[in-house]
Amino acid sequence: MKIAVDVISGDNPPEELISGVCHYISKYKDSVIIIGDEERIKKKLLLHPYERRYIDIVHTTEIITMNESPAEAYRKKKNASVILAAQLVASKEATGFFSPGNTGAALAAALFEIGKIKNVSRPAIAAVLPNIKSSTILIDAGANTECKPHFLVEFALMADVFCKKVLKLENPRVGILSNGEEDEKGSDFTKKVFELMKDIPMHFIGNVEGYDLFNGSVDIVVTDGFTGNIALKTAEGVSKTVFTLLKNEIQKSIFSKIGALFLKDNFKNLKKKLDANEYGGAPLLGIDGNVIIGHGSANAKATFNALRTLRFMDQFNLNKEIESAFSKLPETSDS
Amino acid sequence: MKIAVDVISGDNPPEELISGVCHYISKYKDSVIIIGDEERIKKKLLLHPYERRYIDIVHTTEIITMNESPAEAYRKKKNASVILAAQLVASKEATGFFSPGNTGAALAAALFEIGKIKNVSRPAIAAVLPNIKSSTILIDAGANTECKPHFLVEFALMADVFCKKVLKLENPRVGILSNGEEDEKGSDFTKKVFELMKDIPMHFIGNVEGYDLFNGSVDIVVTDGFTGNIALKTAEGVSKTVFTLLKNEIQKSIFSKIGALFLKDNFKNLKKKLDANEYGGAPLLGIDGNVIIGHGSANAKATFNALRTLRFMDQFNLNKEIESAFSKLPETSDS
Repeated sequence: MKIAVDVISGDNPPEELISGVCHYISKYKDSVIIIGDEERIKKKLLLHPYERRYIDIVHTTEIITMNESPAEAYRKKKNASVILAAQLVASKEATGFFSPGNTGAALAAALFEIGKIKNVSRPAIAAVLPNIKSSTILIDAGANTECKPHFLVEFALMADVFCKKVLKLENPRVGILSNGEEDEKGSDFTKKVFELMKDIPMHFIGNVEGYDLFNGSVDIVVTDGFTGNIALKTAEGVSKTVFTLLKNEIQKSIFSKIGALFLKDNFKNLKKKLDANEYGGAPLLGIDGNVIIGHGSANAKATFNALRTLRFMDQFNLNKEIESAFSKLPETSDS
Repeated sequence: MKIAVDVISGDNPPEELISGVCHYISKYKDSVIIIGDEERIKKKLLLHPYERRYIDIVHTTEIITMNESPAEAYRKKKNASVILAAQLVASKEATGFFSPGNTGAALAAALFEIGKIKNVSRPAIAAVLPNIKSSTILIDAGANTECKPHFLVEFALMADVFCKKVLKLENPRVGILSNGEEDEKGSDFTKKVFELMKDIPMHFIGNVEGYDLFNGSVDIVVTDGFTGNIALKTAEGVSKTVFTLLKNEIQKSIFSKIGALFLKDNFKNLKKKLDANEYGGAPLLGIDGNVIIGHGSANAKATFNALRTLRFMDQFNLNKEIESAFSKLPETSDS
């Protein structure tokens, strides 16, 4: 079992991500292929003689940056780290890859180098959001701007398998993101999805609202990639704003600063609960190989967590299970 | 200048909302028509002999509850407080109305009793969201689930007039809620809106993302009512979750409780900044009368703030200004 890690596409220096890789190896004794500047990687690994034996290096210094157009960059930058990572999975040298940074580039690399699981219409991004009790999966968090109703049924089914096999959740509750909880609420589009969902063997609980992403009342929230992306970024924006306003409040007086000292560990816990790095990144489901797309800000912890999730995805045969679930789906007229 | 206030449709007792009315009258010496249970209103007003002179009462005890289907309730409950409020505006006995609670019912009452401003295709809900610096308007926050591209141009224009005339913002920045900031990002639908927006005399800054609702980089965010509703409720959900998690953290030890005591005023400030009641409610723009729809949880402060905003909407001739702005719009093929 080998996992490929692109350590140069994120905002953090490669050394930070390599620390995460080494932590993972010391814990799981798994082999990892690191993609990046060979000299720099080797230098960093001098400090990790034990882990060094588990690591192969694929050299490149070419990256697709956050602001590049994925389609264009994918055509032009044949040695980009994320593309090399996907190729290692396509050639079966690795079972999965992790790349932080440009989501569109990771999506293009996965789709064109590796390809989809049989019968899957579109791969989708499953964002794992913290909620008051544990976590909720939002799918699609941004891969497919335009969707047909049956795509959303497929997204739900992939997330259902992921929850059951990887997160070990017995009977995940699935809801459609809508503008009201009642069955008759929703857009023309979500109403069509609602009709299709009723026929699928899942624990479908109907429409859910924006609030429900965080109150623990639903495990999988299904939506198109446009709406999902907006919900995800709105959530990140609010969370960041609350912390900024809190920070401003704390700076106001000596009393508030003292209070904050007493609450230091609690603020840390709170931040940890809401931290994107706690989840490593978002699994891209529907690709015939395991893929996790990391936040641009992915650090050592995110890298460790992503590798651990990729390990579970492989260990529990996620994609075989998805393929099997899809073979039982009723046929649709288009893909 | 008279404003109608429905004090019985919200979650709070009418006495709470009447307190807000009395506070408003003592400050602005304006006349208000209170709609609700006459006996209960009169009893409460015994404590407010000065304000009593400024108040007319329209008696009803019929309400449309939060969970009722607006269309059905509108047909059946002819004496519902929100309908009587809208009728007072339609008959010009009041310049505007405030009703907390069932948004769909307030929308139906406004639309069918009062009607739209000339040339406006659809009224839209303008939610005023707190941001790191001041506030951002999200329009449409839920009135129109299905939209045509030119509706969004109209929403933006109405919010633009509201910002300039009522909030006294000189040159409000207008953005389209999208899944990326680049001009080429967006759904097929938002791309059409983008093309139309370029020709309208507004400070159009292009696409904005979920984050931008709260970072102060844009004043008006335009979207369809489905997406807007999801963004709004996601934001409310995250904000509530952060406070719940923080509360749980504070309960953990005697140290954290002491810290929280030191930060008591700061937490209060923070809550105030994020409190829906600080804004009184969401103006419903495009109706030929002034309308503010309050949160179900609207309290005395929300009522006071809503009345003050309704006063400004009247004083600055908001609807005449909207009508004038619309008369300069290029003609569209449908409405």
